[in-house]
Amino acid sequence: MEFSLIDRIRKLTEQGRDDVRLGIGDDAALLAVPAGQELAVAIDTMVEGVHFPSGTSAADIGWKALAVNLSDLAAMGATPAWALLALSLPSADVAFVDGFASGFAQLAQAYRLALVGGDTTRGTLTISVAVHGFVPPGRALTRAGAQVGDAVLVTGTLGDAAGGLRMHFARDPSRGESTYRPSRPDHSKKEGHEDAHMAYLAERLNRPVPRVDAGLALRERASACIDVSDGLLADLGHVCTSSRVGAQIEAALLPRSPALLDLFDDATSCEFALSGGDDYELCFTVPPQHVAAVQADLARLGCGATRIGRIVEGEGVTVRDRDGYPLARDRQGWDHFSA
Amino acid sequence: MEFSLIDRIRKLTEQGRDDVRLGIGDDAALLAVPAGQELAVAIDTMVEGVHFPSGTSAADIGWKALAVNLSDLAAMGATPAWALLALSLPSADVAFVDGFASGFAQLAQAYRLALVGGDTTRGTLTISVAVHGFVPPGRALTRAGAQVGDAVLVTGTLGDAAGGLRMHFARDPSRGESTYRPSRPDHSKKEGHEDAHMAYLAERLNRPVPRVDAGLALRERASACIDVSDGLLADLGHVCTSSRVGAQIEAALLPRSPALLDLFDDATSCEFALSGGDDYELCFTVPPQHVAAVQADLARLGCGATRIGRIVEGEGVTVRDRDGYPLARDRQGWDHFSA
Repeated sequence: MEFSLIDRIRKLTEQGRDDVRLGIGDDAALLAVPAGQELAVAIDTMVEGVHFPSGTSAADIGWKALAVNLSDLAAMGATPAWALLALSLPSADVAFVDGFASGFAQLAQAYRLALVGGDTTRGTLTISVAVHGFVPPGRALTRAGAQVGDAVLVTGTLGDAAGGLRMHFARDPSRGESTYRPSRPDHSKKEGHEDAHMAYLAERLNRPVPRVDAGLALRERASACIDVSDGLLADLGHVCTSSRVGAQIEAALLPRSPALLDLFDDATSCEFALSGGDDYELCFTVPPQHVAAVQADLARLGCGATRIGRIVEGEGVTVRDRDGYPLARDRQGWDHFSA
Repeated sequence: MEFSLIDRIRKLTEQGRDDVRLGIGDDAALLAVPAGQELAVAIDTMVEGVHFPSGTSAADIGWKALAVNLSDLAAMGATPAWALLALSLPSADVAFVDGFASGFAQLAQAYRLALVGGDTTRGTLTISVAVHGFVPPGRALTRAGAQVGDAVLVTGTLGDAAGGLRMHFARDPSRGESTYRPSRPDHSKKEGHEDAHMAYLAERLNRPVPRVDAGLALRERASACIDVSDGLLADLGHVCTSSRVGAQIEAALLPRSPALLDLFDDATSCEFALSGGDDYELCFTVPPQHVAAVQADLARLGCGATRIGRIVEGEGVTVRDRDGYPLARDRQGWDHFSA
């Protein structure tokens, strides 16, 4: 049974890569790293009810399980190559596996990533994916290179996934908390906009697009980089710790999507953008003289990049409001064991 | 919290390897595969109540989670190098993590294996480990090379883990099934032997020793190899399928430990040896002229190797009893989804 489940996924994710000398079906896969490249590896786990709400479609779970890992490779500036999958399922649910495999494969094909190993077990729905990518020696982006005076930028928009999660629970209160209330009930909306915006946020929650090409483009110019998985404040905080610097963010500069701004009030959307998590955008630092060139590069790639603050002496992340006053906050991102 | 749990494990498993260019603490690790080596990679998951009984100590779980993966590298003839760990825990239980880390580290140190990435999440107790090892191109052992006429051998003894599992449930019926009955109650036992034998089987269940050195020694001479994780019949069956051959096993030749033979009757210990699973011995095939040399090599390594049958034309595994008659069986190993 184990073999046949993985086999179904394998068939959907075969990429015909020359560097896979022996794929799924033996005790281990045999792989060849290209000469002159280092290997970037990461592992991430998703648990139902913790990392995605119950009721998420199998295809979305498959996509996202790979996306959150490719996002780690993106943050290193690595080119994706191979993945391993460990899937725990309550029962041998072929329909789930086929759905999962289709979502996983859709994203894998976009990067010619090959699934080279897998294991399925009986248990609560838990998905661990390990990814492998290539990067030239000494060229990877790390969290440790930010310098005082560097600009802080993020790709895309922030807070959409948190907004999507809030909408998910608002639609079906039986699924969990129900705290969503239309934030601007008196606001005149064009007919249909709300549905489209809700769909947009759901897509951002369930189908995050890892910024792989952006990470590769940043290799030449960024001094530090991280992906925003736990929330901007928490993740930028990691960059500060690794680089032994502080960061100052302007709340007014946080890039927020029209959908988020339409469905939530300013304070809520700002909170989501600062600490919502699950966005899988890249947060990175660049010397001021490279900001314009980086923004042009990432505009060409479709995600854009917004300058949101700067690296300062000291430690930790501070946020200033529109008037330049420090924003008081009692929660810096979220933590899987305290959430 | 996530970072600190993995950090505790990292501190216990640092190996100072030159090929780890960047370890735990960034979005991905950066690793250098030695020139002229291929990478062997595998992933395996253990779920409480499925792969180990509730009540197993944290240190034993940590050891075994790595051991079952190193066993896959052993079966390929690969030299262990790096591991990734995904750990789901019901709560941030520091005592459990420290125990887990100590068992994991104990085995990792034996092979100078470095933990290079990890992720902890909240969930039911589930452990996925991905391992990476090196093997010269074209020299890996696979399941596909068995030839008609080759001898079939196994390292060590078979059935001990199944015996240990049976004893585990017999000691504390509240933990699950209770089918153990002393098989030879009238047999005169030397005082204390039974306890020692029970402890031996428990050790074999909870602390399997991956046959890494045996796998390396076999690279020169074995035509096919697999590790016995699901039971001899199931795993040798995989070799037959991959090699497009059949195998004939003599029940009387199955290597069984004194402990197993002392605590269970012949039929039960034979059943355990054939399909008990969880032994993590190597089952391999060699041309007849190399059997003596292989046995001498593996005797020097301490595990030994016993010839249990031969590769024949056809398909599947048949077992013959002492009189040469085919043994009828209704169960070929076990399957995580039907167990």
